[in-house]
Amino acid sequence: MEKKPLILITNDDGITAKGIKNLVEAMRPLGTLVVVAPDKPQSGMGHAITIHDPIRLKKSNQFEGVEAYTCSGTPVDCVKIALYEILKERPALIVSGVNHGSNAATNILYSGTMSAAVEGAIEDIPSVGFSLLDFDANADFAAAAHYAHKIAKEVLKHSLPKNTCLNVNIPKGELTAVKGTKICRQGKAFWDDQFVKRQDPFGNDYYWISGEFSVTDHGEDTDMWALDHNYVSIVPTQFDMTAFGLISQLNEWDL
Amino acid sequence: MEKKPLILITNDDGITAKGIKNLVEAMRPLGTLVVVAPDKPQSGMGHAITIHDPIRLKKSNQFEGVEAYTCSGTPVDCVKIALYEILKERPALIVSGVNHGSNAATNILYSGTMSAAVEGAIEDIPSVGFSLLDFDANADFAAAAHYAHKIAKEVLKHSLPKNTCLNVNIPKGELTAVKGTKICRQGKAFWDDQFVKRQDPFGNDYYWISGEFSVTDHGEDTDMWALDHNYVSIVPTQFDMTAFGLISQLNEWDL
Repeated sequence: MEKKPLILITNDDGITAKGIKNLVEAMRPLGTLVVVAPDKPQSGMGHAITIHDPIRLKKSNQFEGVEAYTCSGTPVDCVKIALYEILKERPALIVSGVNHGSNAATNILYSGTMSAAVEGAIEDIPSVGFSLLDFDANADFAAAAHYAHKIAKEVLKHSLPKNTCLNVNIPKGELTAVKGTKICRQGKAFWDDQFVKRQDPFGNDYYWISGEFSVTDHGEDTDMWALDHNYVSIVPTQFDMTAFGLISQLNEWDL
Repeated sequence: MEKKPLILITNDDGITAKGIKNLVEAMRPLGTLVVVAPDKPQSGMGHAITIHDPIRLKKSNQFEGVEAYTCSGTPVDCVKIALYEILKERPALIVSGVNHGSNAATNILYSGTMSAAVEGAIEDIPSVGFSLLDFDANADFAAAAHYAHKIAKEVLKHSLPKNTCLNVNIPKGELTAVKGTKICRQGKAFWDDQFVKRQDPFGNDYYWISGEFSVTDHGEDTDMWALDHNYVSIVPTQFDMTAFGLISQLNEWDL
């Protein structure tokens, strides 16, 4: 019998989230699974790693018949400790999610879910982050699970070029409403932030970060456009952030 | 008299670090300064934002004659709260650092210093992150301060194209040993991690993340090459992470 591929699963909403439960079930037929996920919500952690605190790791029985661990660190810590401490071989695939909420456009930078996938790409392991455009803890993950299975299967078949990963976002709503997938570029957007100012019982101010996601790029080849039109968006992603077009211009400056 | 440009200063080592002190002094002749910096070390925080905890902001007298605040959040939080809550006008420039330690190559992804600059770029404000290749709390910042002043002056003069920032790294050592600046691309590298396993007094395991930075790209146009040859590296940086070369290939898949 052929050896099943090893699939590492993580997320940023924590091991008890509905999103990772659905991702585990979607991956089950595709390989041998190991889960290493945060022991608490780690949304918005971006590519953070834990260097000022020790990291705790605990065995978990969260998923029937699946080797699983909770980690006190960030999603990127989860990938690192899985690769360098837990797993005896390199996984064939790393999947992260399914995130409760969008990681399309500029959100990729803030996203713990996608940073885990990017860390996989840095390690040159085919990696995919999945996110559903529904923040609800009890969101309908049927479409997300369906496409996660389909996309992971294709990635296992074709692999991915060196140092790349995929950023997959799934529209909110029922599976039957989704029109299919679109390969997209990362759209441009920013958070028009608001800081909600309050006072604690001791008279000291504190703030909650809040805001509106403001899309500044309505190109039909963007992930935002695809999602707005009920397609699953797939953005091939890499982590060389060089602004190559600016190199010759800077060479003219007095630096 | 001409109005002086407004310069926002932040870092990830915290407001008491020697690096930000040197950056403040280097910026003093160039504009009106406002400092919003973390109240504690926030190294390795990447592009993390604080969404599960309230954010505290306090006035600080850290820098003689300079409006300054400590923020309980991450470097990206510092930029956001400065732009949306503290400052009455948009700054002409955001500078971050000077970081104690390299943010060259792939380190840009883990770096709180550079994520603050990238957040500035998202907000379309010319931004520069500065990092010195010396982790020592009492490192010699003379070269860093000299080049930070020079580069910031040029950025104020020319501005930067939309949604870009600069990642500047300064070699360790004396100013006189630095050969000048080089405009570079982001080199390829990864952290060959090690997890140091220990036991707490209660018999529970914990881990410290550790490792060796492994450079896999020795191109003479990389930041790593420039730094190895005693040049200040300047990498023009953007945050569209799309792997454009992969779009047509993925369109052939059964997705």
